[in-house]
Amino acid sequence: MKFNKVLDNLKIYEAGKPIELVVREYGVAPEDIIKLASNENPYGISPKVGEVLQNYINAMSIYPDDSFYELKKALAHKFKVDNKNIIIGAGSDQIIEFCVKAKTNENSNILMAKTTFAMYEIYSKQVGANILRTKSDTHNLNEFRELYKDNGADIIFLCLPNNPLGECLDKDDVYKFISEVDSNTLVVVDGAYQEYAKFKDKKKQISPDDLIKTFPNTIYLGTFSKAYSLGGMRVGYGIANEGIIQELHKLRPPFNITTLSLKAGIEALKDEKFVKESIEKNFKEMDRYIKFAKDKKIEYIESYTNFITLLLNNSISASELSKNLLKKGVIIRDLSSYGVNAIRVTIGTKFQNDRVLKIFNELL
Amino acid sequence: MKFNKVLDNLKIYEAGKPIELVVREYGVAPEDIIKLASNENPYGISPKVGEVLQNYINAMSIYPDDSFYELKKALAHKFKVDNKNIIIGAGSDQIIEFCVKAKTNENSNILMAKTTFAMYEIYSKQVGANILRTKSDTHNLNEFRELYKDNGADIIFLCLPNNPLGECLDKDDVYKFISEVDSNTLVVVDGAYQEYAKFKDKKKQISPDDLIKTFPNTIYLGTFSKAYSLGGMRVGYGIANEGIIQELHKLRPPFNITTLSLKAGIEALKDEKFVKESIEKNFKEMDRYIKFAKDKKIEYIESYTNFITLLLNNSISASELSKNLLKKGVIIRDLSSYGVNAIRVTIGTKFQNDRVLKIFNELL
Repeated sequence: MKFNKVLDNLKIYEAGKPIELVVREYGVAPEDIIKLASNENPYGISPKVGEVLQNYINAMSIYPDDSFYELKKALAHKFKVDNKNIIIGAGSDQIIEFCVKAKTNENSNILMAKTTFAMYEIYSKQVGANILRTKSDTHNLNEFRELYKDNGADIIFLCLPNNPLGECLDKDDVYKFISEVDSNTLVVVDGAYQEYAKFKDKKKQISPDDLIKTFPNTIYLGTFSKAYSLGGMRVGYGIANEGIIQELHKLRPPFNITTLSLKAGIEALKDEKFVKESIEKNFKEMDRYIKFAKDKKIEYIESYTNFITLLLNNSISASELSKNLLKKGVIIRDLSSYGVNAIRVTIGTKFQNDRVLKIFNELL
Repeated sequence: MKFNKVLDNLKIYEAGKPIELVVREYGVAPEDIIKLASNENPYGISPKVGEVLQNYINAMSIYPDDSFYELKKALAHKFKVDNKNIIIGAGSDQIIEFCVKAKTNENSNILMAKTTFAMYEIYSKQVGANILRTKSDTHNLNEFRELYKDNGADIIFLCLPNNPLGECLDKDDVYKFISEVDSNTLVVVDGAYQEYAKFKDKKKQISPDDLIKTFPNTIYLGTFSKAYSLGGMRVGYGIANEGIIQELHKLRPPFNITTLSLKAGIEALKDEKFVKESIEKNFKEMDRYIKFAKDKKIEYIESYTNFITLLLNNSISASELSKNLLKKGVIIRDLSSYGVNAIRVTIGTKFQNDRVLKIFNELL
């Protein structure tokens, strides 16, 4: 059977290995596995969210309110925007998909950093668009400028902070850059890890209300998957001016988040204390990885997220190291598939980091 | 800002009105609202599923096993196929999307019944494909044949039984039709309500293993949203030969169902007794609507599903009736947007049907 040609060239997203797979393939007992591969919040969910959801299980048979009214209202309040400025997605991934499919086609250029969130590329390839990447792995705005000046672009992706590397541009530099961009180019500011960045350094903070007021051609993406602990529930959002949101809504399938995801998102927004404490612990624990890297003279990228990327020198292969870690029940993310000899480690709990750093110490 | 032209022509899916909206817009108390608009299983979830999920709430922070290994294994066992014959979607809707986007483009014809599941049209329009519809509202295979002979098609959608009308073709007729179709045309057999149809009449039963062995150019779609009670959790599946499944997987976003949805699906398959009892009660209760229609001389379509479609004569407008029902707290589906002066009523519990039939009796 013949399929569309664009499929020939598609790359499949490589997810962090799930615990179940390591049990199956490496025969490690589930209780001995530490997964620091997918940047989940290691402190689990807010107990308050858990309590509400436990009493809500029976709602599984009922479709959600497809307008997502209450969740949008809560987000609108938090970000000082209107419900009409918000679209809800099955993770912010899905908003990336809407942006690419609404705005680009096989004649489009899409501009992004060399090493950045894989879904930008995956969706771009689905529409057959041309991908322009900077030379530097991390975001380099001068390289963005040059590529944009020479080629133009229908979408520019800025991942702030950047997954999978962890670096983050300053807000002032980002604003200066966007001010030079044509008003018909959609600039996607992916803030999946913004909660971490702004906690560590106010200069990194991008506020969606100010962003979209200043630049009508921008969309801010946020997620519940990281600081808000709902990685498994697939809830993200986009914030933009109403005209953009209306167009994206045309591509949104009905019921694109589950009934329990909707409730969990609403409840998670009520417990900001839990989020703040998770973030505080994150950076305290991250310091131990930094100390380890410095002691071992391993290069790392300063991180504004809940993970740290260790750059390996030529004597160690990231794939080899990842396999050896798997055998010991430690799942981290091998960045070889991004073309970088590096590993990305989610910052775990103290208990997890104790064990992982001990194993790192043996292997590195 | 300019967007792709294809967006100009898009139709948005009209979801059944959620209870929350009727509370907000009509001021009816939530406890007085009966929603029979979205063909959810009115008997809720299996208590066994509920129990397991209650102890699983904390997994919300963790991404699911993106291979969906265990769920596929359970489905493969149930349907006597291999894991490799299965793709999991956020509802079977998402598999429809994958099929359309993998197989068709703006040069394609897509063939379907005049009045059938709205998502076929919505995804077809997203790729700019040309939609061919039969003249008859319900599935008429001779009309399908004629349109196919005259125009060809890259995809043919057969909804068996058909949502939103409820009729169902016999398996033998379907097989004869597919045997006449070119092997490069993908025939989508949407079995979202098959559990109901095969319970009522064995002649309607289409078994995915036999279907895909007999016709390599077919895909069978199933869902957990109806008989398996997980409407709110968005889990569906496609069963086809490995070559087709591999192509569709290229369009599957990672983590396209939630961690709790995955678990709920696995558990729901373990309680077939609950499903069977729901279906038995469904048809027993449906008889009351049939009796009502006969008494009132209202035309209806014989239904092989968990809903019944009442065809209204010109003296009553479906939209007007729907509004009057809403004021009394009864949410059903007005089919005016499909171009039919009819209402679709999900068969509720005895308690719900008592009240709804009483109100119908006053208004019809």
